[in-house]
Amino acid sequence: MYVAQALKLSKSVAEKLEERNILKEAIIKHPFFRDVIEAVRFDKKFGEFEEGTVIAKTINGVEIVRGYPKIRRALTLYPTIKKYFKKRVVFEEKMNGYNVRIVHFGKNLYAITRRGFVCPYTTEKARELLELDFFKDYPKYMLCCEAVGRESPYVPKDVYGVDFEFFVFDIKERASGNPLPIREKERLCNEYGLKLAPILGETDVKNAHEVARDIIKKLDEKGREGVVIKDPEMRNKPIKYTTSKANCDDLKYAFRYFSEYGKDFMFSRIIREAFQSFEFDESDEELKSRSLRLGESILKAIVESIRDVSEKRKIVEVVRLKFSDLDVLNLFLEHLKRSGVYFEVRDMKKEEGRILVEINRIMKSTTDKIKDHLKGGLW
Amino acid sequence: MYVAQALKLSKSVAEKLEERNILKEAIIKHPFFRDVIEAVRFDKKFGEFEEGTVIAKTINGVEIVRGYPKIRRALTLYPTIKKYFKKRVVFEEKMNGYNVRIVHFGKNLYAITRRGFVCPYTTEKARELLELDFFKDYPKYMLCCEAVGRESPYVPKDVYGVDFEFFVFDIKERASGNPLPIREKERLCNEYGLKLAPILGETDVKNAHEVARDIIKKLDEKGREGVVIKDPEMRNKPIKYTTSKANCDDLKYAFRYFSEYGKDFMFSRIIREAFQSFEFDESDEELKSRSLRLGESILKAIVESIRDVSEKRKIVEVVRLKFSDLDVLNLFLEHLKRSGVYFEVRDMKKEEGRILVEINRIMKSTTDKIKDHLKGGLW
Repeated sequence: MYVAQALKLSKSVAEKLEERNILKEAIIKHPFFRDVIEAVRFDKKFGEFEEGTVIAKTINGVEIVRGYPKIRRALTLYPTIKKYFKKRVVFEEKMNGYNVRIVHFGKNLYAITRRGFVCPYTTEKARELLELDFFKDYPKYMLCCEAVGRESPYVPKDVYGVDFEFFVFDIKERASGNPLPIREKERLCNEYGLKLAPILGETDVKNAHEVARDIIKKLDEKGREGVVIKDPEMRNKPIKYTTSKANCDDLKYAFRYFSEYGKDFMFSRIIREAFQSFEFDESDEELKSRSLRLGESILKAIVESIRDVSEKRKIVEVVRLKFSDLDVLNLFLEHLKRSGVYFEVRDMKKEEGRILVEINRIMKSTTDKIKDHLKGGLW
Repeated sequence: MYVAQALKLSKSVAEKLEERNILKEAIIKHPFFRDVIEAVRFDKKFGEFEEGTVIAKTINGVEIVRGYPKIRRALTLYPTIKKYFKKRVVFEEKMNGYNVRIVHFGKNLYAITRRGFVCPYTTEKARELLELDFFKDYPKYMLCCEAVGRESPYVPKDVYGVDFEFFVFDIKERASGNPLPIREKERLCNEYGLKLAPILGETDVKNAHEVARDIIKKLDEKGREGVVIKDPEMRNKPIKYTTSKANCDDLKYAFRYFSEYGKDFMFSRIIREAFQSFEFDESDEELKSRSLRLGESILKAIVESIRDVSEKRKIVEVVRLKFSDLDVLNLFLEHLKRSGVYFEVRDMKKEEGRILVEINRIMKSTTDKIKDHLKGGLW
């Protein structure tokens, strides 16, 4: 099998891979994806291979695209930064979108989501927004990007003032996952006109926690998500840390759709708020205002969902997307179905040669649960 | 084996009971428990037998004590009450303590906790506070009580203004778990001088949700926990509903000891608050004040625990108990150990012939987790 061969797996490891049913289809067969003959994704971590690793049999041979590893989180800035980094650290903005790896197969670009799906919508966007020059010079690299904007199918946000953009945060060797040093990444992005996730500062580890706190407070005021803290040479694993605004926005989202979301997701964000309040040494007044923010994020979101259901509406998240090609739209809907998303197309129209589509992502489990309790169902 | 025989289990069912390792020791061998030769408790539900069911081989023969069944919860008063009850319902106060079944074996009283442990402390209290007259006349009944007060080993609360008391909420046939009708229970308690969990009202199901709301609002103001809604004849299963104060107090407790407590526990209380806010049709101002109460319950509790650990204190819950007999104190400590509680005795003294003891219940998991993050451990 081409996967075992490409990864140079021993026979017994290859058998384990099969037994544990780790590999799933990564791509839908269609002329839009014509450079790829077939492709699989790792549905779980397996040995050194991250979840979301993709092995693609392309018209030019078999390609390995390593998954994007989970970035661990600091609950305290001090002493965490000092503990995990040596000498100097760089702060980059952690943007609030979805993680995409953009690679070049055959003659075209392909955009791979965190879990290893080749996403039709994101791929179309990549082909429209990005030049091939970079990949002609560096065919073995991938661009690790945050895809953000109002027209994001997964994390629609208005905060960046754009419809849809890619912001590069890492350039990595595709097959090994090894990242370039930050200066090198910055240089290449500037050279090839690629947008960078903002690099916010570099400092000595000694006072990094103070610098980080200032950065976080400013990002919080602007409604931004947080920072990724990195070794300039990228020898250490990055660490992330988020603003209170981001934590509360996540909570709003998770409690609005409380039966779709995991309790761990909610719990972890609540705990973060407490550690931040403690570390920022908040006054009674500040703690009170954080408590109100937290409480409202949670309660108003649930009450809004209960109200929706009581007034006979389904609980939905609306996404508004633009496609250039009707085939890609259909591929994207097929992709949503395969990912296990319930949805309905609520509107579709043509405008200046493009297709504007509105999709309701239906939160069936939350809708059903609330409906049951409103009819008198017990807990 | 005496259990299979007493319960008249077929051979195959008895084998399943054994296989699944359901039965655990319910009692510690000691002269204080001399009427009991041996006793087991159901550690899980098994067929019709509730978790906490106890089978005791006593000096007068084998006795079955059915577990106290889980009472399900209404998230909305309307239409839930109407849906589950016919004609009339009784509202009883749900007191905030721990559930105890008091039974008479041989010549003495025994107090059994929800999970089926014969608790030495509660047993001593039962023998001191309750007369045997009731059990002489009704040996096959058990008193299902809430044990409440400042000197509760499990749920210390000052709200009832007592050190320790038993409040009867059900009288049941021990072996079948069948309850007496409410009037009958009330009559017997009055006749034998037993304290009753307050019966707050009786009404038609038609307007029961309105009556319930008034009762809940008054209980909330007094800092009480909530109501149990019952069929006067006890033919239907009771349903419970709690005040916002109780939900928030639970959240304070659960987040103070966040790593000891389950996320389901926290999550369910948050959802309750939202359904109550919705059903009580709260104004923006009321929703804001509920949000602040919720947020502060959660956040202040965690911050307090972080502060404790940062100042080198272990996170503990202090319980202050009075024993008459040193043997019982030692039995109780042994019982805590068997129940998997970490604790240390922080003070012990004699006063008017009784032993006053202060026990720190140590929340090891929360303490360790916070310590790790304060040292820079990642999430």
